Amino acid sequence: MSTAAPILLTPGPLTTSARTRQAMMVDWGSWDDSFNQLTASLCQQLLAIINGADSHHCVPLQGSGTFAVEAAIGTLVPRDGNVLVLINGAYGKRLAKICEVLDRRYSTFETAEDEPTTAADVDRLLHADPSITHVALIHCETSTGILNPLPDIAAVIAQHGKRLIIDAMSSFGALPIDARQVPFDALIAASGKCLEGVPGMGFVFARKEALGNAAGNSHSLAMDLHDQHVYMSKTGQWRFTPPTHVVAALHEALLQYNEEGGLPARHQRYANNCQALLDGMAKLGISSFLPEAIQAPIIVTFHAPKDPRYQFKEFYERVKAKGFILYPGKLTQVETFRVGCIGHVNQAEMQAAVDAIGQVLQEMEVFDI
Amino acid sequence: MSTAAPILLTPGPLTTSARTRQAMMVDWGSWDDSFNQLTASLCQQLLAIINGADSHHCVPLQGSGTFAVEAAIGTLVPRDGNVLVLINGAYGKRLAKICEVLDRRYSTFETAEDEPTTAADVDRLLHADPSITHVALIHCETSTGILNPLPDIAAVIAQHGKRLIIDAMSSFGALPIDARQVPFDALIAASGKCLEGVPGMGFVFARKEALGNAAGNSHSLAMDLHDQHVYMSKTGQWRFTPPTHVVAALHEALLQYNEEGGLPARHQRYANNCQALLDGMAKLGISSFLPEAIQAPIIVTFHAPKDPRYQFKEFYERVKAKGFILYPGKLTQVETFRVGCIGHVNQAEMQAAVDAIGQVLQEMEVFDI
Repeated sequence: MSTAAPILLTPGPLTTSARTRQAMMVDWGSWDDSFNQLTASLCQQLLAIINGADSHHCVPLQGSGTFAVEAAIGTLVPRDGNVLVLINGAYGKRLAKICEVLDRRYSTFETAEDEPTTAADVDRLLHADPSITHVALIHCETSTGILNPLPDIAAVIAQHGKRLIIDAMSSFGALPIDARQVPFDALIAASGKCLEGVPGMGFVFARKEALGNAAGNSHSLAMDLHDQHVYMSKTGQWRFTPPTHVVAALHEALLQYNEEGGLPARHQRYANNCQALLDGMAKLGISSFLPEAIQAPIIVTFHAPKDPRYQFKEFYERVKAKGFILYPGKLTQVETFRVGCIGHVNQAEMQAAVDAIGQVLQEMEVFDI
Repeated sequence: MSTAAPILLTPGPLTTSARTRQAMMVDWGSWDDSFNQLTASLCQQLLAIINGADSHHCVPLQGSGTFAVEAAIGTLVPRDGNVLVLINGAYGKRLAKICEVLDRRYSTFETAEDEPTTAADVDRLLHADPSITHVALIHCETSTGILNPLPDIAAVIAQHGKRLIIDAMSSFGALPIDARQVPFDALIAASGKCLEGVPGMGFVFARKEALGNAAGNSHSLAMDLHDQHVYMSKTGQWRFTPPTHVVAALHEALLQYNEEGGLPARHQRYANNCQALLDGMAKLGISSFLPEAIQAPIIVTFHAPKDPRYQFKEFYERVKAKGFILYPGKLTQVETFRVGCIGHVNQAEMQAAVDAIGQVLQEMEVFDI
């Protein structure tokens, strides 16, 4: 079946391995010991990726990644906290929106979508407003694929004695983050991204002390990570019905992640995918939006061809008919489309996708790239 | 694989059909038209079950059923609302807890766990406190299996001009609820219950007018059903990453639901399961906690054997080894255990479960039932 379905070159949901999907062929009892063991093993493996077992708890949460981001802010930012939100794309804006809805005081610092936030920016902002308690940052902005310099920013925040919340949705598992070197109160990611599970759950690495002090902060019952963690520590179970099949798939995906060689191998494969994509597209004359230095090997934004015969909708459908699902652009100023480098795909498939794109542009008589 | 895994006689997650699980073998692009069509078809089929297409919107939501319940209260009860919560078990208590965390004014009316709330109770309570705006009710309490008289209660609430929120988590799809006859603002259920999908999403049937007036009520970004609905109406897409495989499984489960004969057939199969269970257990001398008149054919609470050689943990493990997963009791006063009647199982399997239970009691030398 995996050969018949199109390959997803999207930022998640993405293409998973047949073995990962096969793990969903069993119905698990959510109260049963064997399922509790699966959850415990999952959290243990996730913590190992960031070397976080000593410093952080892993708290899984039902729902999409955004649910986990909201839960992290709601649980870990006290009601009288003050969050500085660093923005260079749609997901940064969403962080600010969450603070607004949750009635947490916040301010924003926004740079252009092709301009990473710098540690110097953050240093200046924290000097200017000592009432800031937390800084929230997108590691890799999926709206463009831009990488923000996390370790430098984290160091500055720590120097100021402030707390860091990292949305690492599209980078976790592929780009290195070491909890022993990068201080943070929360790092958030999800099942259906670089770990190559299926979508349906997120997880938050919460600094043990911060989580311990977070009782009563949450605006929500279901999204209270403190309660979720306390209950899970006591019973081994999720507080509310877990997405059992999604959990089983992520567990199986993690086994494969480790068999592949863990983060360095995953990073390398995605980097190779990204390079194959960039090289192939360059040969077609299609240029990427970001300079290579700030391009994460996760998703690439390409300028749409200038030719009036190019229409994204038709382009998308024709490429899909050849077996590849692309992603629309998310920039307001410039017409773009996006191609993911992540998922259970390799260089050969990236090359085949580029070939399909080239053929489609020919078919559409799009010559003015 | 389905023959090797134990059968889940639990209130969800439950045993699904191989065909339903097989639907998870495809990775869907969440932005893709074919996935949008799947979501639209899902909502249409769900609305048809309650004859609700004219009066209600179906708003799906990521996460467990509790997420959808919280979302319904947060979205549909205005911040100055006042909720009367009817309680006869753990899930009713959870409704009250949600109101508390969401900072909605509320009062509770609690009856014993084997005593349904009556329409007369509700009439009296609404007369006594005209400031009540909403009533929240559990249709079938999973903690015992008790059925509350929904149509009568709904009629009284409508007479008072108040709004009704129904947690129909464990009854929806098996017990009849007709939106043309039972007035309600919200009815909440989830994928992994009587529809026999896998867990990972809930859905709320929200009265169109109530949802239309609900902008800005929500305490949460991710759980804002008004925003979720507006976005989905406009784009066909979920606002945040959907649990694509869970959605596909539920869609496939709904096709089978309709092929089986819809609600009457599903109800009949569960009623037969329940009867086979009650009859078989009675022959073993094990009595059910509830009288049959208020016992829904969803999950049955049984008194634990009195014999000191009975220990739930050992009993559970031994029955599991014979291929059936049971569920612990949830009553504080009486020692019980629970057996579900729902899922992709029939009378023969219920009989086999009873046989297994009988054998295990023999093996454990539990004679004093």
